[in-house]
Amino acid sequence: MQHLIDIDSTPVADLEAILELADAIADGPGRFQHTGRDRVLVNLFYEPSTRTRVSFEIAAMRLGLRVINVAASDSSVRKGETLQDTFLSLQAMGPDCIAVRHPTNGALGGLTEFAGPEMHIVNAGDGSRAHPTQALLDMYTLRRHLPDLANRTVLVAGDLHHSRVTSSDVALMKKLGVGEIRLCAPPELMAASAVTDGVRVFDDFDAALEGVDAVMMLRIQHERLGAMDAPEGEDYHRHWGLTNARLALAAPGCIVMHPGPMNRGVEITSEVADGPRSVIREQVTNGVWVRMAVLSHLLGLPAAG
Amino acid sequence: MQHLIDIDSTPVADLEAILELADAIADGPGRFQHTGRDRVLVNLFYEPSTRTRVSFEIAAMRLGLRVINVAASDSSVRKGETLQDTFLSLQAMGPDCIAVRHPTNGALGGLTEFAGPEMHIVNAGDGSRAHPTQALLDMYTLRRHLPDLANRTVLVAGDLHHSRVTSSDVALMKKLGVGEIRLCAPPELMAASAVTDGVRVFDDFDAALEGVDAVMMLRIQHERLGAMDAPEGEDYHRHWGLTNARLALAAPGCIVMHPGPMNRGVEITSEVADGPRSVIREQVTNGVWVRMAVLSHLLGLPAAG
Amino acid sequence: MQHLIDIDSTPVADLEAILELADAIADGPGRFQHTGRDRVLVNLFYEPSTRTRVSFEIAAMRLGLRVINVAASDSSVRKGETLQDTFLSLQAMGPDCIAVRHPTNGALGGLTEFAGPEMHIVNAGDGSRAHPTQALLDMYTLRRHLPDLANRTVLVAGDLHHSRVTSSDVALMKKLGVGEIRLCAPPELMAASAVTDGVRVFDDFDAALEGVDAVMMLRIQHERLGAMDAPEGEDYHRHWGLTNARLALAAPGCIVMHPGPMNRGVEITSEVADGPRSVIREQVTNGVWVRMAVLSHLLGLPAAG
Repeated sequence: MQHLIDIDSTPVADLEAILELADAIADGPGRFQHTGRDRVLVNLFYEPSTRTRVSFEIAAMRLGLRVINVAASDSSVRKGETLQDTFLSLQAMGPDCIAVRHPTNGALGGLTEFAGPEMHIVNAGDGSRAHPTQALLDMYTLRRHLPDLANRTVLVAGDLHHSRVTSSDVALMKKLGVGEIRLCAPPELMAASAVTDGVRVFDDFDAALEGVDAVMMLRIQHERLGAMDAPEGEDYHRHWGLTNARLALAAPGCIVMHPGPMNRGVEITSEVADGPRSVIREQVTNGVWVRMAVLSHLLGLPAAG
Repeated sequence: MQHLIDIDSTPVADLEAILELADAIADGPGRFQHTGRDRVLVNLFYEPSTRTRVSFEIAAMRLGLRVINVAASDSSVRKGETLQDTFLSLQAMGPDCIAVRHPTNGALGGLTEFAGPEMHIVNAGDGSRAHPTQALLDMYTLRRHLPDLANRTVLVAGDLHHSRVTSSDVALMKKLGVGEIRLCAPPELMAASAVTDGVRVFDDFDAALEGVDAVMMLRIQHERLGAMDAPEGEDYHRHWGLTNARLALAAPGCIVMHPGPMNRGVEITSEVADGPRSVIREQVTNGVWVRMAVLSHLLGLPAAG
Repeated sequence: MQHLIDIDSTPVADLEAILELADAIADGPGRFQHTGRDRVLVNLFYEPSTRTRVSFEIAAMRLGLRVINVAASDSSVRKGETLQDTFLSLQAMGPDCIAVRHPTNGALGGLTEFAGPEMHIVNAGDGSRAHPTQALLDMYTLRRHLPDLANRTVLVAGDLHHSRVTSSDVALMKKLGVGEIRLCAPPELMAASAVTDGVRVFDDFDAALEGVDAVMMLRIQHERLGAMDAPEGEDYHRHWGLTNARLALAAPGCIVMHPGPMNRGVEITSEVADGPRSVIREQVTNGVWVRMAVLSHLLGLPAAG
């Protein structure tokens, strides 16, 4: 496995290996601390990001890698250079890995054919389609709390249409065998691409929540709604916001996830986000373990001892 | 002492310990060189900054820490995530320290209750209120030149109203016992919060300079003056600019300080800024020692040998 | 040799030493890997840049240096601080080297008189005048392919007027003895400063290509053309674009260079850029070796073993 482009193209064995490695790293990060010494990761971000970029950066640092950040506001991008040429230039400078975030669906797929044998590409989110490291950290978090996933029901709810998390998460849950996968969104914000065999679709949030063991709330992306005829603010919250009252419909012990950043009071209330069922902060921590595992797996870094 | 939020809330013993540590570092930085190895500092800057951010970054590097920069232009901030949630996410990734600059007065105070026991927060400047590491480096510089501070007179002059340096500096000078503290500004630019017991206020610059042992000139913040009825440019310079002629009114050997960036020809002339009394560049150098001391003190880094 | 400001002011012996060192580094980068440990490079970029900034950063990292990036969008610059004061502040923080990119011709020359004995300044491109590390990597690439440069003909073609590469490259080729140097550009885009003794000037691209051993294509800088009466797009391509058909006019084995970023289909076709004569990607790789050599030479870093 040379690259991590999306869940669909990644063998189950590699996905499992990454999740197991993440477990080993979380248990004893010290053994992995300098294994990537003198290696270099480039974060090539065509969209701004705090969470994902910092998570990759801190994951790389914990492995001992050096990190170089390139942002869309930098020059070549402005000067109209193609993604391919920017990639080829960066590759020619000899880094070991490039994590790319790009606004266009599938932008990264085309890069792999230009990658040399020593180069590793990681998709840090492209368009509204794929965000495989987010899916892996979500799955990692799910499995820590619900080891018997084959018997469990997981609901993904919110603005599914604009989220790059939806299809990656659904693809991974199907691949690794979640018992039942439910999707729930306002009709305008349903993700057609995620509605695949075996997925149950709801347009009533209360009905969707009934008996679920985990609910993953997605952020309403105000900045992408544009002129869509979708509910906003108060109205959105009334129909699609997760409250403690709604959460009572789920199975006892149901965990609450959110990839962040959250719109408190819109898709989720603070009482839920900060409540006992929330594993939202844990997801962020797990994101570092999982990204360390991805980098270790791709670069073939050995654990010490 | 877990955090450095402002001068008022920090015990004198810690402030003294930091200043002594800065002295030890300045004398032999090599002993501290890799003491912070494998630790991580996040610079979370909601306002752009060259000087302070680079000073923190270079201070951290000299201790062996890794540094991650997050700027206000990054995504989560734009997406309307609260400071608290951004902090909590970053904290969940496991850095050891976060230096925060924020445009809102007191923004950082609210974060400490969310900080885990291993996390350290440093105020890198909030609103127009607090900039404790600047105050510490100013005090450090003052004491190197004027060890008998209890017998000395220090004047802070210029746009006191908009500077986050004013109240931190006054608070620290009072706490560590400067003989006489004077403030001087155009009435519209006086800092009400800094006018406290024992501080002498002047509205005539020449009178204020009479016999002082140190003068700290503050930058006129054109970009914040907005529609204020305050003197500008030439006019400001004539009444409030520090020239060699004016400096002659001070005590012999009076030192000149400025936190930068300077408006040459406005609040200070080049003959003064680059003259023999100026310790402006030395302040910048001391800023690195002091920030190394702050990080070492908070993180409990031991000196080698 | 303390600084690298431009080719003209640098002794031939130093230029030769840098090129030889680059060769040694390319042959065995491992010997140089941690030689710059605990040193600090500041990249001070007043113009955005991907390629040059990342190349300096990765070169510094491969030597073990720490790197701090300061961009024009950062604060002091916005607040109207002069380049000199920004430089002096940064210098006071104790880095070992500052690489500066600046939009103004000759902006860096003035800084050297303010540099302390331990400080090294590298010009990372100023105005449309000088880009000495680009010239060095171009020369390094030329010599690897054409060791007998004194018997060779090299053509520099394209938007010579706006490129900071032109005069640095011509100066270096003259200094190190290229057999024949040709320049070719639309009359409006000729670089007057580069037209010096012994340089042959063409305004017909086909004639200029006749028998050359290397052609360096420069990027048409749409963003700087502004209201100039210069050919654009299709029109430019028809007269000044390098195609395989045109390349057939050159000497057999003629190599094709481009400093990037390329406008594919304008000054160069993809068949040429990606074809067997192209050494464009190799230039980028060589850029890292050459910048490692520049930093090593200036900082006096020893090779291991």
